[in-house]
Amino acid sequence: MNENLIKDDETLDDLQLKDLFVIQKKDKFRFGVDAVLLANFANVKSNSTVIDLCSGTGIVPFVIKGKNNPSKIIGLEIQEEMVEMAQRSVLYNKLENKIDFIKGDLKNIEMLKKLPKADVVTVNPPYKVYNSGIINPDDKIAIARHEICCNLEDVILACRTLLKDNKRMYMVHRPDRLVDIFTLMRKYKIEPKRVRMVHPNVNKAPNIVLIEAQRDGGSFLKWESPLFVYDEHGNYTEELTRIYGRDK
Amino acid sequence: MNENLIKDDETLDDLQLKDLFVIQKKDKFRFGVDAVLLANFANVKSNSTVIDLCSGTGIVPFVIKGKNNPSKIIGLEIQEEMVEMAQRSVLYNKLENKIDFIKGDLKNIEMLKKLPKADVVTVNPPYKVYNSGIINPDDKIAIARHEICCNLEDVILACRTLLKDNKRMYMVHRPDRLVDIFTLMRKYKIEPKRVRMVHPNVNKAPNIVLIEAQRDGGSFLKWESPLFVYDEHGNYTEELTRIYGRDK
Repeated sequence: MNENLIKDDETLDDLQLKDLFVIQKKDKFRFGVDAVLLANFANVKSNSTVIDLCSGTGIVPFVIKGKNNPSKIIGLEIQEEMVEMAQRSVLYNKLENKIDFIKGDLKNIEMLKKLPKADVVTVNPPYKVYNSGIINPDDKIAIARHEICCNLEDVILACRTLLKDNKRMYMVHRPDRLVDIFTLMRKYKIEPKRVRMVHPNVNKAPNIVLIEAQRDGGSFLKWESPLFVYDEHGNYTEELTRIYGRDK
Repeated sequence: MNENLIKDDETLDDLQLKDLFVIQKKDKFRFGVDAVLLANFANVKSNSTVIDLCSGTGIVPFVIKGKNNPSKIIGLEIQEEMVEMAQRSVLYNKLENKIDFIKGDLKNIEMLKKLPKADVVTVNPPYKVYNSGIINPDDKIAIARHEICCNLEDVILACRTLLKDNKRMYMVHRPDRLVDIFTLMRKYKIEPKRVRMVHPNVNKAPNIVLIEAQRDGGSFLKWESPLFVYDEHGNYTEELTRIYGRDK
């Protein structure tokens, strides 16, 4: 029955977490390890309100729902096609009362102000600075990967607008943008509080960074132990296997 | 003969690097692994001019001299007693033509402008924000560890003043200050270009950070593979042993 929710160019993927599934396009934008790490990094208390920006397939809200007990999660996404697909994932998982996806542009501050204030904001934004020479601005994958529709400053301002006083945002990004990230967070008075670097293995430079930051927080930055994705045999490390939440 | 250069409350320590020795106080400020890592992290070309700030015992200039061939290294230090001791290390090593220590306050911009312009500036500054409640401001160890005589902003402004256009500074610090460091570097247009985190071992959070930054550099930050101090048996790792430069 529910299989009618899935289109021909889509797959239904088992998160192996509390019987949750996410619909993805077969050959277009699919979620990555980054989003799963972000959803695990976020500290989400019971009965809190969570807003996820640049929500894409909706993976972050679904993993957060599977691991925590927030009262409401709203996923904001600019691409109509992604919002429509994520809403079908909500129906498939029967989570209409818990998760809602809405189409919207995070640069629209007036729209953001109409949303409920958030205890937690999560965001897996486009990583790459927009280089107009090589990107088709209509390309849906490009919009998710490059700062075409929003840049880092837009994202951080949106987080400030959405968060309740002293509440926290969680972002996943690339380590090479960390100077920009820290500088902009200070500019908008969202203080970086906790950072975790993710390395492919113990011998490699980090290629993913997870950042927790507090609206109007005091300055103290805690660095966590590094997270390694693969062990010396090329298998997922114990910790990564645990994060992937295989609960069956 | 040269042993007359060493006072009763001092030790003469073999750097195990090109027959270099450094004089230190027996029970006061002695150099740490941080300074040795900094000296190794700095990229020093032949015939360059190097200025080391907060020079202390002079360890950074001596290790840089042992590993590279700069034409001149100047160590600036605010504590008279340390400068006098470091100058005796210069005499002991017969490096009067290569290394010079001078007493001076890095907040004195006019004094800095009279120094030769530097190709490389290194600095191992006091790490801790000055908390007036618990520190004796006359304490020589406190001056080296806490921001009593200079703070991070003073240090970064001094680096900008001393560096030639587009040349680079190298700093060792604590990871918990990295938001301050990046923000102040951007403020003074010294762009962070390369970062290496140093961890006690693979399971621990980083406790030392090495930063390379370029005066008026463009924004691109490279993260290096992590440096681990101890292996799983509690011995120095191969890389750390190599950095310590035992060349005999």
